[in-house]
Amino acid sequence: MKVGVLQLNAMVGDIDGNCAAIRQGMAEARAMGADLCLTPELAVTGYPPRDLLLYDRFVARARAAVDALARELEDDAPGGPPLLLGGVEPNPCTLGKPVFNAAFWCEGGAIRRTFRKTLLPTYDVFDEARYFEPAPAEHNACGEQANIIKHQGRTIAVTICEDAWNDKDYWETRVYPRDPLEEAAAHGPDLIVNLSASPLFLGKQRLREDMLGAVAHKYRVPLVYANQTGGNDDLIFDGRSCAFGPDGRLTGRAPGFAPAVAVFDLDAPRPGAIADDDFGREAETWRALVMGTRDYVRKSGFSSALIGLSGGIDSAVTAAVAAEALGPENVTGVLMPSPYSSQGSVDDSLALAANLGISTLTLPIAPIMDAFTRALAVPFAGLPEDTTEENIQSRIRGNLLMALSNKRGAMLLTTGNKSELAVGYCTIYGDMSGGFAVISDVDKTGVFALARWHNAHVREAIPEATITKPPSAELRPDQKDQDSLPPYDVLDAILALHIEHHRSARQIVEAGFDPTTVDRVLRLVRSAEFKRRQAAPGIKLTPRSFGTGWRMPLACRREI
Amino acid sequence: MKVGVLQLNAMVGDIDGNCAAIRQGMAEARAMGADLCLTPELAVTGYPPRDLLLYDRFVARARAAVDALARELEDDAPGGPPLLLGGVEPNPCTLGKPVFNAAFWCEGGAIRRTFRKTLLPTYDVFDEARYFEPAPAEHNACGEQANIIKHQGRTIAVTICEDAWNDKDYWETRVYPRDPLEEAAAHGPDLIVNLSASPLFLGKQRLREDMLGAVAHKYRVPLVYANQTGGNDDLIFDGRSCAFGPDGRLTGRAPGFAPAVAVFDLDAPRPGAIADDDFGREAETWRALVMGTRDYVRKSGFSSALIGLSGGIDSAVTAAVAAEALGPENVTGVLMPSPYSSQGSVDDSLALAANLGISTLTLPIAPIMDAFTRALAVPFAGLPEDTTEENIQSRIRGNLLMALSNKRGAMLLTTGNKSELAVGYCTIYGDMSGGFAVISDVDKTGVFALARWHNAHVREAIPEATITKPPSAELRPDQKDQDSLPPYDVLDAILALHIEHHRSARQIVEAGFDPTTVDRVLRLVRSAEFKRRQAAPGIKLTPRSFGTGWRMPLACRREI
Repeated sequence: MKVGVLQLNAMVGDIDGNCAAIRQGMAEARAMGADLCLTPELAVTGYPPRDLLLYDRFVARARAAVDALARELEDDAPGGPPLLLGGVEPNPCTLGKPVFNAAFWCEGGAIRRTFRKTLLPTYDVFDEARYFEPAPAEHNACGEQANIIKHQGRTIAVTICEDAWNDKDYWETRVYPRDPLEEAAAHGPDLIVNLSASPLFLGKQRLREDMLGAVAHKYRVPLVYANQTGGNDDLIFDGRSCAFGPDGRLTGRAPGFAPAVAVFDLDAPRPGAIADDDFGREAETWRALVMGTRDYVRKSGFSSALIGLSGGIDSAVTAAVAAEALGPENVTGVLMPSPYSSQGSVDDSLALAANLGISTLTLPIAPIMDAFTRALAVPFAGLPEDTTEENIQSRIRGNLLMALSNKRGAMLLTTGNKSELAVGYCTIYGDMSGGFAVISDVDKTGVFALARWHNAHVREAIPEATITKPPSAELRPDQKDQDSLPPYDVLDAILALHIEHHRSARQIVEAGFDPTTVDRVLRLVRSAEFKRRQAAPGIKLTPRSFGTGWRMPLACRREI
Repeated sequence: MKVGVLQLNAMVGDIDGNCAAIRQGMAEARAMGADLCLTPELAVTGYPPRDLLLYDRFVARARAAVDALARELEDDAPGGPPLLLGGVEPNPCTLGKPVFNAAFWCEGGAIRRTFRKTLLPTYDVFDEARYFEPAPAEHNACGEQANIIKHQGRTIAVTICEDAWNDKDYWETRVYPRDPLEEAAAHGPDLIVNLSASPLFLGKQRLREDMLGAVAHKYRVPLVYANQTGGNDDLIFDGRSCAFGPDGRLTGRAPGFAPAVAVFDLDAPRPGAIADDDFGREAETWRALVMGTRDYVRKSGFSSALIGLSGGIDSAVTAAVAAEALGPENVTGVLMPSPYSSQGSVDDSLALAANLGISTLTLPIAPIMDAFTRALAVPFAGLPEDTTEENIQSRIRGNLLMALSNKRGAMLLTTGNKSELAVGYCTIYGDMSGGFAVISDVDKTGVFALARWHNAHVREAIPEATITKPPSAELRPDQKDQDSLPPYDVLDAILALHIEHHRSARQIVEAGFDPTTVDRVLRLVRSAEFKRRQAAPGIKLTPRSFGTGWRMPLACRREI
């Protein structure tokens, strides 16, 4: 049996566009001899549709699109291979959430069977229990059947994403009491398929392939996994749909970070069916940032972007990503030197822009700074300078950048990294202004590594001085980041323990860090929460980013 | 039996402070003769603790505080009345979410029984399935018992918030298959108690009293309901803890919007046990805004606030709320006239400030506007003026206000209403700048009603001209809101249907609105989503506000 996977870049909410892409993908898969095709999870609506699901008209339209697509596929190729299509199904009962996360078996111009997702991830960025009713545990008043279907003499177990992620032999701790795979296994399947929308964190594909291979091996059946690709807001779907033999070995893999139609022959896997890939940290980061930026900008209806260039490494890396994502001709770097800006920073910015092939604009801000100083002369009389004056500069730059963004219709990209966002080393409404925060889930240490990797593997574009000089916000004379913050290697290690591993201050000290430093860093993290609440969305790369999955109280006491 | 309710204003995360307040409340309740006391839900941690619950040290500290408090209560009054205390319990199993939302029966210096919440609200602002494992349906490996306990010869059914909100005779549609009240009723209880943290929406108390009374009547037992009070970020807890007789009639109610220790005598309800209240829309709005603003500012560690005064009704109402919440001596109104500001607006702002007793500062922005015009002369050469120039003004004001906020340590309050935030009639990083958005869930029609109500019932402080003149942003000559937007009564009706009732464009047209207007309004709503994502938190007053419960995709196609 040949199973086709439509690894598509779905646009959330674009029911018509997504269905058109599926129809096109089916034509390709048929041409490649597919006997059965799969889409990713919720392919009709795109994943995640979030609160669009609260609109019953949206759910009804998405459901009606499945019928229409089933008919169209039959018109396109009468008697063609069936399609397992991810979509939504209104719950006909008055008990429970109003929608099921479903997979529709479309065959012969109609829906032959509907499968419902059982395990609804509700953690980190996932809110599925907010929207969906799980598949009932047994036959009930609304009429349920097991999640298996026969096709070409094979018994196929149908699972949707999380349904395959709860094997008791694989996981030491588990969230869900049910295991839909085990339930299906009781029916002796010959094939397991899984429709997924599995967002990336760095290194996740190794985990997926290990876990899915273990499941295939456990039940001694081949397994085919279809994943979405593309960026949807903060989430990056890296594709890499794949197939496993009954021995658990990987037999096929679609490309990463790109749409693809892949046909996996279960009976005679081709030697070249496993696409080359690079699971290295920087390579994966780069591909995710480029795809995520391109998709966010374009799916928002923009084609060009603006970036404030400071001469520092954050804006340099952000500009490199944007140039790759949108084409250098669509990116403008804006230099806004103040009296505290060094000539080196200006030179480095111009060199970077020339290397990347992006255009620049230079708008000195000293006259505007002077106007603010005069406007505030009375209320500030006699008061010492402090961070207020630094923030004014940053907000002047934010205003200039947003003015250019508004006038030109170009999206402003912010350049802050995760370390800064964690400790609040950034100005709200200043350098935090912008529509998308490209590197907001890359810590400063990671930004340095990415800059070096970029220069070695993509293009020698980021000036050496930008990488080697001590980081500075250049908001007062001779300022250096390390005057206010611990060394970045120490800071980033503490932040990872606290943010990604949920370690308390005491636990971090027990791991060997200086108590005073730990207390200071965690105090900074607490007091920056209000800034993060108003931050632009950014690309999630770690298991715990400051995005939709970060839900901290604000006006609270937070001694953890 | 006399049941004491500790209707406290819990600070999220402040385990020590919350426990100290509970101990103090217990002393008061004992003095009033209570035989049993209840706290609200999660009284130890405050509600909602949100992602603090992902830190196992936090959960462990909150659990340990229950033991400590039980001992302290016994020390304070040996043999005193038991306390049913809302808190968290680590899940001892490796299956399921790691925490239970629990109620601890503290008696004789120790925990006599632990009850677990069964129904976990996961909709709108509630994310309980993200954090909590529900109470198991039956005895299981971890050892479960029914949610009843005996005390003074009575059988008491213990429920936590949502557990009481799923009666099949009361609700036409229900989310949960289980009904913990029905489960408890099988044991023939003599009393139902409910520990709640039930956030306000306008009119909710009527629903609570009707529903809880129906439940008491159905099971023919008295019912005592304990609710949290105070503001925690966007959520307002209005208190109004109450008691019902076995006939379903209200027998007691604690005050709204204030901490209280109330003792309800189940056997002989006092005539004065039902506190006076006002469920009127404007009265409830006013009290919620005042308490929410006070708590957000103070729980954030601030004592004073700044507001940009435009002469318009939104900033006038916001200033009135702030003056009431923080004391007029702690509020400063900042006038930032431009060449487009009318003298009337300046006069109205000064009159308002004088009436409220708040101080003012006047900072004209024309010189800064000129400096921006010069800085942007080259990139803007030959391009027509558009909203860019309006946004620059608004962002200049935002920068000045934030500078004052930074220098003085006063929180900047934003003044935008829900109608503006819905259609994007506001400038991101401009007038949207600030720590708290006081009236962001009051639509423009509601702001007018609140202003009139305020002048009639609180203080004749808002100038008549501010209420009667046509609203204007005054960002260009002779600008009026109605040049860009439909009349506010039409706009607000369409917005309520779309935002609060999840009606699609077609459904709104079917309700009798002009198709062109509906399409225009909904297009504006869609295209302002990026602004709302970066908006300050604000006070939730409706069943559907633009806060933590509004989770829309950004880069999407949103035709609903």
